[in-house]
Amino acid sequence: MAEQRTGADRPLLVRWRDRFEQFASQYPSRFAILVFGGLNVLWTALLMTPWASATGEPTPLVDAFFQAVSIICVTGLTVVDMATHWSPFGNALVLVGVQVGGIGVLTLASILGLTVARKLGLRQRLLAAGDSNPSRVRKGAVVENQAVRLGDVGALLRTVALSVLVFEAALMLLLYPRILLEGTNPLQALYEAAYWSFMSFTNSGFVPTVAGLEPYATDPWFLTVLMIGVFLGSLGFPVYFVLLKNLGNPRQWSLHVKLTITVSVLLFLLGGLVFLVLEWGNSNSWGEEDFGQQVLQAFFLSSMARSGGFAVYDLGLLHNSSLLVTDMLMFVGGGSASTSGGIKVTTLAILFLAAVAEARGRRSMEAFGRRIPSDVLRLAVAVTLWSATIIAGVTIVLLEITGAPLSFVLFDVISAFATVGLSTGFTHPGLEEEAKVILALTMFAGRIGSVTLAAALAANQRTQLFTRPEERPIVG
Amino acid sequence: MAEQRTGADRPLLVRWRDRFEQFASQYPSRFAILVFGGLNVLWTALLMTPWASATGEPTPLVDAFFQAVSIICVTGLTVVDMATHWSPFGNALVLVGVQVGGIGVLTLASILGLTVARKLGLRQRLLAAGDSNPSRVRKGAVVENQAVRLGDVGALLRTVALSVLVFEAALMLLLYPRILLEGTNPLQALYEAAYWSFMSFTNSGFVPTVAGLEPYATDPWFLTVLMIGVFLGSLGFPVYFVLLKNLGNPRQWSLHVKLTITVSVLLFLLGGLVFLVLEWGNSNSWGEEDFGQQVLQAFFLSSMARSGGFAVYDLGLLHNSSLLVTDMLMFVGGGSASTSGGIKVTTLAILFLAAVAEARGRRSMEAFGRRIPSDVLRLAVAVTLWSATIIAGVTIVLLEITGAPLSFVLFDVISAFATVGLSTGFTHPGLEEEAKVILALTMFAGRIGSVTLAAALAANQRTQLFTRPEERPIVG
Ligand SMILES: [K+]
Ligand SMILES: [K+]
Repeated sequence: MAEQRTGADRPLLVRWRDRFEQFASQYPSRFAILVFGGLNVLWTALLMTPWASATGEPTPLVDAFFQAVSIICVTGLTVVDMATHWSPFGNALVLVGVQVGGIGVLTLASILGLTVARKLGLRQRLLAAGDSNPSRVRKGAVVENQAVRLGDVGALLRTVALSVLVFEAALMLLLYPRILLEGTNPLQALYEAAYWSFMSFTNSGFVPTVAGLEPYATDPWFLTVLMIGVFLGSLGFPVYFVLLKNLGNPRQWSLHVKLTITVSVLLFLLGGLVFLVLEWGNSNSWGEEDFGQQVLQAFFLSSMARSGGFAVYDLGLLHNSSLLVTDMLMFVGGGSASTSGGIKVTTLAILFLAAVAEARGRRSMEAFGRRIPSDVLRLAVAVTLWSATIIAGVTIVLLEITGAPLSFVLFDVISAFATVGLSTGFTHPGLEEEAKVILALTMFAGRIGSVTLAAALAANQRTQLFTRPEERPIVG
Repeated sequence: MAEQRTGADRPLLVRWRDRFEQFASQYPSRFAILVFGGLNVLWTALLMTPWASATGEPTPLVDAFFQAVSIICVTGLTVVDMATHWSPFGNALVLVGVQVGGIGVLTLASILGLTVARKLGLRQRLLAAGDSNPSRVRKGAVVENQAVRLGDVGALLRTVALSVLVFEAALMLLLYPRILLEGTNPLQALYEAAYWSFMSFTNSGFVPTVAGLEPYATDPWFLTVLMIGVFLGSLGFPVYFVLLKNLGNPRQWSLHVKLTITVSVLLFLLGGLVFLVLEWGNSNSWGEEDFGQQVLQAFFLSSMARSGGFAVYDLGLLHNSSLLVTDMLMFVGGGSASTSGGIKVTTLAILFLAAVAEARGRRSMEAFGRRIPSDVLRLAVAVTLWSATIIAGVTIVLLEITGAPLSFVLFDVISAFATVGLSTGFTHPGLEEEAKVILALTMFAGRIGSVTLAAALAANQRTQLFTRPEERPIVG
């Protein structure tokens, strides 16, 4: 208060900037939601203009809103044909939108949000400890590198910029010659290479041409490059941050890095194997191709289900069993503070480690020789419960509105929430307007993140002055 | 060891009894699984005999196995017509089976299992504290009545016998006159009253006649009595145990009792309201009846979904949205150590309280002025993850085997796992043999309980001699 009063004689602009900074640092999650919501509104307005559409006709509000949210949330669901609907200006909006939405604002905001939200949630302990690193205020030995600290934000910004630049350029380089081979003219090929590269690294999943993946449907090179792009994008910036510092020294890798990479690889392999088995012999998908193609397609779907969103086959023709497996992979998603959605691989790992510790009668969760504090489990439960509740609620409402089969509705709702972008065909131009709006809001809720929202809801961070008596209900 | 050596000169029978008791107390969950598995095998053998079937033809192995598991696990799913298939001996097997399975062996075993499993899981602390009450070894104030102690088993047995006797007799008394009113002869009416009463209190859901609930489909009296029976059965014996001691003194009620009753009532009301809205105007269900009937039917389904398993309408004709809501209610189930299945209402409460505590930035979960120890959350997560994994796995396999729609398969799998017994029609006499076996095993896994199994898996209860360094991954 004293500080604000002395600021009364400073210029108005400086006072506004100070207030803005104060708000941003005091309520990082509300700030993130505001900025992110603003971006969605801005993109909706821009996409609605006649200049954005190829025909010069303005795009209707609901479609523009749906597509804007799908772009900024890097989801990839479409209710217009992305390859033909937009003008060059519209396509530029798409390309810039996925970069800003996928990498720029929200990733940084959510990293800040995570750090600061944890600090807020642990306020009492922090007040006592007087340290800005939440993991430092715990009792017991604390290992460096294990959390992104506020002081690291500068370094983080450089990491983000560098990794985006390097990765996307590399992907373009790998894709460009292959697109030329199709007989595409060099300039158009450059545009398409950039488009595919941006869309894979940001896990957006839009396609630049009407043919989409068709020319490359059986090409191991093209599909593998896309898989690598999606995989790298899904690891998350906290992982690059540690890896860039200690790439050659795995002993210095944090628990977060090890968990993220391990679970990501395991899910990729497991998903691929399961798809291979379940689609065996399905003549509507790859089930009757030669074995090499079956392996390629099964693992491509496994990779894309975790947030990439590119599809070679019409997913509505897959077996219902494969759709349910895809649902599960989509629900888990990628790494924390990455371009992918879902509850995140570390959240799944924590839930699993808790169950293992319980079954083995251990006192604490353990992984890679580290003990994981039990309050992390509470956060993981909150994230999972929040996600499952939203998905169930939206699915119930959309089932009631559309009367479509459960397997299709559930798939597209999870795809929207986890910003995957795969579709069984439920999401299409003729979908009911209210269903389009609800799906768009689902994407927003999914991308803005459970953590951010939960922290934003924490209006009253109260210190408890007394301890209640402990009591143990029976569960299970 | 010293004790066993001195026992060498005792009679063989006493030594065997001692070994048996030692095994039962040392591995209570394995003991429970063995006894329970044995019961299923015995009932399968008995139901296969020609004397059990009405025609004198022996029932095929797979059908007898399915029906035996469905009876002993008090599920209520059927692959034969329960009203016409069995002889009087067969019907006696059904009636005795649900009492033994629902109330006798497993409930007691699981209560013992819960108590002892917790003790085993906390062995180190118990060794230090030298107390048989697991909740007593925690630091902080401990409130009495909050857990069933081993010393209370005698009292518990009396409570179980008393409540079963009183409740089932009362239900029979309320149903008998109503069945007479239909013009049923007094002796047959007595049989039917006993059948309905046993099936509602044990949450089994089999029906005694071909007409089933048809004569009473719109009768508020009959349906309400069934709802009361199912509700009482679903509270669980730990609840009666406390209530019988302190019925008039709610201040003495344990946290477990308060949570169980509160969540049960909330889910019943919420489910009923949601069904009322979702089925509004559906001419295939009660959607075009008068308002009073709509309310009755919506709340009847809400009550039955949580494990009762009686159905007035063909559930396959409900909206897909209602089926998904039913899935969720079935998944939650009833109270711990009750005749109902699912993850249990207290487990849901713990997950929810953890999310609330996280969102509000509180250090611990709280309810009714009590603090809940954080290791309870770990158990709740283990139970939920185990349940979800089984359900997902079985659903994927059955989708692949049968090619039936997701909404039907998922419904019947959850119904089997949570021992509810409602069916969309997926479970029927013509179902593939391997699907019948898988569903039967799902019922067994669901009824034997996540806790029991998890504890049984804990082959090595090891004491940790060292503490690992703590590290915090990012989740969400
Ligand atoms: K995507
Ligand atoms: K049942």
